[in-house]
Amino acid sequence: MNGAESLVKTLLANGVDTVFANPGTSEMHFVAALDSHPEMHCILCLFEGGTSGGADSYFRMKRDVAGTLLHLAPGFGNAFSNLHNARKAGSGLVNIVGDHATHHLAYESPLKGDIQGISQSVSHWTRVSPDAASVAHDGAEAIRAARAQNGQIATLVLPADTAWTPLPDGAPATCRPAPALHRPSDAQIEAAAQRLTQPGAALMIGGAALYGPAREMAGRIAARTGARLLCDTLIPRLGRGAGQPQITPLPYAVPPKIEALAQTSSITLAGANRPVTFFAYPGSPSLPEPANCPVWELCRPEMDIDATLADLAAATGATGTEPRRIALDLPALPTGNVTLEKAGTAIAALLPENAILCNESISSGFHVMPPTAAARPHDMLGGTGGAIGWSLPGSVGAATACPDRKVVVLTGDGSAMYTSQSLWTMAREGLDITVVVFANKGYQILRDELLNVGVQSYGANAQAMFDVENPELDWVALARGHGVPGTRAADMDRFTKAFAAGVQGEGPSLIELVCP
Amino acid sequence: MNGAESLVKTLLANGVDTVFANPGTSEMHFVAALDSHPEMHCILCLFEGGTSGGADSYFRMKRDVAGTLLHLAPGFGNAFSNLHNARKAGSGLVNIVGDHATHHLAYESPLKGDIQGISQSVSHWTRVSPDAASVAHDGAEAIRAARAQNGQIATLVLPADTAWTPLPDGAPATCRPAPALHRPSDAQIEAAAQRLTQPGAALMIGGAALYGPAREMAGRIAARTGARLLCDTLIPRLGRGAGQPQITPLPYAVPPKIEALAQTSSITLAGANRPVTFFAYPGSPSLPEPANCPVWELCRPEMDIDATLADLAAATGATGTEPRRIALDLPALPTGNVTLEKAGTAIAALLPENAILCNESISSGFHVMPPTAAARPHDMLGGTGGAIGWSLPGSVGAATACPDRKVVVLTGDGSAMYTSQSLWTMAREGLDITVVVFANKGYQILRDELLNVGVQSYGANAQAMFDVENPELDWVALARGHGVPGTRAADMDRFTKAFAAGVQGEGPSLIELVCP
Repeated sequence: MNGAESLVKTLLANGVDTVFANPGTSEMHFVAALDSHPEMHCILCLFEGGTSGGADSYFRMKRDVAGTLLHLAPGFGNAFSNLHNARKAGSGLVNIVGDHATHHLAYESPLKGDIQGISQSVSHWTRVSPDAASVAHDGAEAIRAARAQNGQIATLVLPADTAWTPLPDGAPATCRPAPALHRPSDAQIEAAAQRLTQPGAALMIGGAALYGPAREMAGRIAARTGARLLCDTLIPRLGRGAGQPQITPLPYAVPPKIEALAQTSSITLAGANRPVTFFAYPGSPSLPEPANCPVWELCRPEMDIDATLADLAAATGATGTEPRRIALDLPALPTGNVTLEKAGTAIAALLPENAILCNESISSGFHVMPPTAAARPHDMLGGTGGAIGWSLPGSVGAATACPDRKVVVLTGDGSAMYTSQSLWTMAREGLDITVVVFANKGYQILRDELLNVGVQSYGANAQAMFDVENPELDWVALARGHGVPGTRAADMDRFTKAFAAGVQGEGPSLIELVCP
Repeated sequence: MNGAESLVKTLLANGVDTVFANPGTSEMHFVAALDSHPEMHCILCLFEGGTSGGADSYFRMKRDVAGTLLHLAPGFGNAFSNLHNARKAGSGLVNIVGDHATHHLAYESPLKGDIQGISQSVSHWTRVSPDAASVAHDGAEAIRAARAQNGQIATLVLPADTAWTPLPDGAPATCRPAPALHRPSDAQIEAAAQRLTQPGAALMIGGAALYGPAREMAGRIAARTGARLLCDTLIPRLGRGAGQPQITPLPYAVPPKIEALAQTSSITLAGANRPVTFFAYPGSPSLPEPANCPVWELCRPEMDIDATLADLAAATGATGTEPRRIALDLPALPTGNVTLEKAGTAIAALLPENAILCNESISSGFHVMPPTAAARPHDMLGGTGGAIGWSLPGSVGAATACPDRKVVVLTGDGSAMYTSQSLWTMAREGLDITVVVFANKGYQILRDELLNVGVQSYGANAQAMFDVENPELDWVALARGHGVPGTRAADMDRFTKAFAAGVQGEGPSLIELVCP
């Protein structure tokens, strides 16, 4: 028994049985400890962005934490971007970061770096275990922190000597219950209930209210009060499709976002941050609501959303009200040449019930996504932090959390290039994931945004930085290189056939849709 | 004229004409400014690890700084690992990181993050430009910081409004000269000169002393005094092959590292940190030198290495001494089945004069590299910070800095998977790079290290985390996917033919060597 094994036992004893791992040499004793506990599910990612993206979406689907295993500060750096997305998603996860043995940190060895510095720039909770006897307790505290406040980033740094030092006992530590969540006062609930009945009132929900029972409750409140039900542009997880209570996601671009809120008299937040534009632009506001529209923080994202909505439903008399629901609208399969709208139609027609849709289609999504809103019921995961390269890792996490559900990834080619290593993990784990890459051969969102800042035409340097051409990427070859079967579709018949095969079959596959 | 354009003009006016870029929306005005200055060489990387790895090796070869262009905190995160390597290499570079407009940072928008926090955990110098009028001056200061102390990481954060706000003037700022480098006192030089003539003395050099005129000077001092010339295991750039003054790189593993220093009476450091083991192990020392062997810091890596060696040569009377040199030893081309030793022999026989060898072969390198020590003269770049995934980006930087030199990458398959996106940049830029991937289908160094910590055999979880099999990676397909022609070699005839074609041809190519 040593510190590493006491940590593995603590993880397992407290329900953390999945680790997205990219180990290095300083984690050898932890690897040995994992090896002696085959009940721990270790998922190898060939790049650390796969570990953090995997644990993020695992939490979004399971509402419980997984671990990541990272190698010193550079390993944490590679995980950072998807940790940022996880933080913005409100996901809880436990990073376990190996470090040099404590006595070795006196010297300028190659891998010595500022792990605490980088960790604290994205984690809610960071601790360096001081000795082997503390590791189990620190691990339990990390799990508690990751589960607190509806989900937090917890990082436990494990110097090698705290892992390898023998322990006389080494029993697992028990994770204390997470601290109770705050909830609004009765007076705040009552005021919100009154407000929501006013003309033009909106209820904006987030977090766990975007799907499942809390979403139902929000739908009842909206139907009873007449308030509009809103959610943010980029959401961690949204229940969509037939039967879901109707909701209006705010648009990405600034003018339609302002337009969407133009007639709004008040916005009451339940589990959501206030709406804000994605970026600022010269002469354009950061806040999209009308000047005379108050924004009320009824329930912050880290507060008790379920209880808040239950109280609000009672206060509005909505407990028995039937929500307005989305009606099923399955379009006919499109044929002929490729358009993004047709691709969306095909996906909407074929998406199986209970699928998990990881949507990183960015600019293509403006055209692809609308038809899917009335498809069969499904969950959609979105890019919460705006850092691209989350959807391939995220689909690994979602498929690991929900092995019985079909996972579909919709991604731009630019985004997919950041973390394409996750294709290999899909194949290794035999995950049931269908990946659609919208190959528009560039960063279309940047082409659009350059026009947004007033540049009318662009030259060689902008072209060099926006176009991913000369050479073109070959996604079928990239998929095969990672061990995933791939298909290129340049017309709609080919696409619908490949997509149908993907969602009706088993295991991972990739479709490159050649975009016009 | 606006802040962004004043920064581009400042970069160009001060000799920074190359930017490894991965832009996002908040950098649109900077992109527009780059676009109006086609004399700026903008190299698109499809992942930010390519930008920092590129700028690192660009500095190692050119001794001058390039820029990176990064997108907020997540973009910096993706660049972090190779910034860590650059820091350990003593490379100077300027990160330009776009951020939200200053007034937008009041709100919890998706991409808002702690850029200063993550930057300060690896940069020597970080500044957030406060307004458009300051941008040119701040840019000049960033360049100065990057050039100071023989090379530093400088990070300039550019909020979008500081980029887009119009300026009446916007003339470029002039970079002040870098602060003078410290040098040892005459007494310290004299003491070192005396010490080096003692039996068992060693002179350990680093930084710019590892190649070129300073290496010659170190070779003269060693020949004159009888001191052994040492360098560290992981070096930023080392002159190697025929004609180079002899030098002994310290081994990676602890027992041979201790053995290599066993008879050493003193170590005098000139541009190097003191030797230290790569990792700590239970019961094993961090410091490899004998207990009675003093280590003298004559010249820290950030001090004036050239002047120190010139003074030391004068003090030892070595100015006219001829160094002991490596003799050319070109082996015969091997045939038959693949071994790593034979691969090294083939590379040694075929490596062209003046090549740049980016060596990330890790465990394979223990067998591959020895024969190349007496090959035709070349420079070798190494993995200074121990963070893998640097050599493909590094080769892009080296080939950009030295377009007339052949660049060869030797990399393990595990390492190459971290930043394989650089293959695309090689093809886009038409860079003359031959990549050899040693496909041993796993993290061989971890397999070795698990034995080092006393585990005799390993089970399913360790195997799952060490082996990159089920499925195997197909490097020929991965290369083709990125637009690079690839070959698989499963015997030595095929390998020597492919390697000869690579180094004798032009442009990028990849060889997957199927390792036994």
